Amino acid sequence: MAIVVIRQDNKIDAWKHALLKANSQLKVYNYLEEHPKEEITMALIWKHPKGSLKDYPNLKCIASAGAGVDYIFDDASVPEHIPITRVVDPYLASDMSEHVLAAIVAELKNFNTYKVQQTQAVWKTTAYRRIADVTVGIMGLGELGALTGKDLVKAGFKVQGWSKNKKSIEGITTFVGDSGLGTFLSGTNFLVCLLPLTPETTGILNTPLFEQLPKGAYIINVARGGHLVDADLIAQLDSNHLSGACLDVYHEEPLPSAHPFWKHPKIFMTPHYASVSDTNSVVPQILENYENLQKGKKLNNVVHREKGY
Amino acid sequence: MAIVVIRQDNKIDAWKHALLKANSQLKVYNYLEEHPKEEITMALIWKHPKGSLKDYPNLKCIASAGAGVDYIFDDASVPEHIPITRVVDPYLASDMSEHVLAAIVAELKNFNTYKVQQTQAVWKTTAYRRIADVTVGIMGLGELGALTGKDLVKAGFKVQGWSKNKKSIEGITTFVGDSGLGTFLSGTNFLVCLLPLTPETTGILNTPLFEQLPKGAYIINVARGGHLVDADLIAQLDSNHLSGACLDVYHEEPLPSAHPFWKHPKIFMTPHYASVSDTNSVVPQILENYENLQKGKKLNNVVHREKGY
Repeated sequence: MAIVVIRQDNKIDAWKHALLKANSQLKVYNYLEEHPKEEITMALIWKHPKGSLKDYPNLKCIASAGAGVDYIFDDASVPEHIPITRVVDPYLASDMSEHVLAAIVAELKNFNTYKVQQTQAVWKTTAYRRIADVTVGIMGLGELGALTGKDLVKAGFKVQGWSKNKKSIEGITTFVGDSGLGTFLSGTNFLVCLLPLTPETTGILNTPLFEQLPKGAYIINVARGGHLVDADLIAQLDSNHLSGACLDVYHEEPLPSAHPFWKHPKIFMTPHYASVSDTNSVVPQILENYENLQKGKKLNNVVHREKGY
Repeated sequence: MAIVVIRQDNKIDAWKHALLKANSQLKVYNYLEEHPKEEITMALIWKHPKGSLKDYPNLKCIASAGAGVDYIFDDASVPEHIPITRVVDPYLASDMSEHVLAAIVAELKNFNTYKVQQTQAVWKTTAYRRIADVTVGIMGLGELGALTGKDLVKAGFKVQGWSKNKKSIEGITTFVGDSGLGTFLSGTNFLVCLLPLTPETTGILNTPLFEQLPKGAYIINVARGGHLVDADLIAQLDSNHLSGACLDVYHEEPLPSAHPFWKHPKIFMTPHYASVSDTNSVVPQILENYENLQKGKKLNNVVHREKGY
């Protein structure tokens, strides 16, 4: 039994070392090195090259090193019978919650406007808004969406949530499915997308949805680039129906320098870094599942393939 | 009996109308118009021209339209026997608290760095910090400082406070006077200045103080420009002892375009707009004191001249 680490960034060795630090007896391979493929029972992956998972005859678990797993379903060569697990990192949710809070309060206080004015030595005041003035609407009430909502309630915001299935969260008004979407949107000033990316939610942030938001609404997409129809967002910003957007995720990452988002005065961009998995908090989960695998026990945090998350 | 409104910005008529809207029987004058000086019993002022208060023989109350009154003591011609009142606006404190929260979380999440990178189409991540990672130290625990501290505790921050006289605020470790300053500073990652400007506090944000902060500390000055020694801040930023500063107040406002703050990459500037008095919430206080004056009752929110606030 052995683990292979597969990812296309420069973090393979960091993960390998973190696993070996936790248990020096493990056999862990970098997929780019020569390694015995029949020994591999677990693949620890993040945005693996398509096709790279099909050559392990004894693979028993595909462990995603992040919370989102949509990239695995994009690879048709991933064997269907192998369970996929995802990370449930407590920091992933709290880091996301803090990022969303920062995005909202910075916008209430016009910080991006002031930062741009500063580069031009312009002294000009813009009326600020208060936490009590606005309602935040969160799409997606999984671990990340639920905690973000609860933290925003603590900070004094009015919060409502929308999800596919009914959720009850103290202090948050919740809406469900297609029938609840219109009412949810009509009362939302800051729309936060924290949905999983599935065939149903791909392109959900589009013109028909934006038109149901009140004039001046602000979009925060911290889920996946695939949720957003880029051209629809730009059109709604340019017509002044939407007041701005804070984006962390994009169709292509890094976002090509010619993409119009970079220079759009109403868009604030961060480089897909709202919340990142930390090896220290993730390694124990991976190792627990690796042990479960060895002992034939039930795996934790298994992805529902039919749901897509 | 009549009220004169004296200020040098373009808001005289707005204040006059707000007072008359609340009570159409009032006599209210713009100081730039012809008006009977002996009738004036109350002057509602904000950064009046020096010398403009000495020509009212029957003046009985100088009502500052803001919380800070240091500008009144800068005018040696203000008659010493006339009580000065200041505004205690509940929104002044909560608006300030929200501004400080925004300044801190935006910095934890490197938003200013990302905004500048965006103008250059640069995709580059910077490790973020968490609310739990840092301690906020608030200098000045009056209405604004106390509420800001309490709100930051609610948001999950570790908060400590420093003031001239001992204050007890739940959830906040407090330090007092010269003897407490060193310990307070040594444990502070985000230093928020909310002191009144007095001869004792003028220039308090200087090299000896900055040197007692841990490396990487961040400065938020939302009190008065006079608290800060500008050159000392720049030197500490350039030597990398301090990591950055968020400034709302300046020695001269608007800040002259040649001032080095404008172009400094580690300074984020807002145009003295963290928290502004709103006529709707201030007018009732002014009118209550005007009525107290007429009935010979005790005035509310009287400034202690010997303390300077």
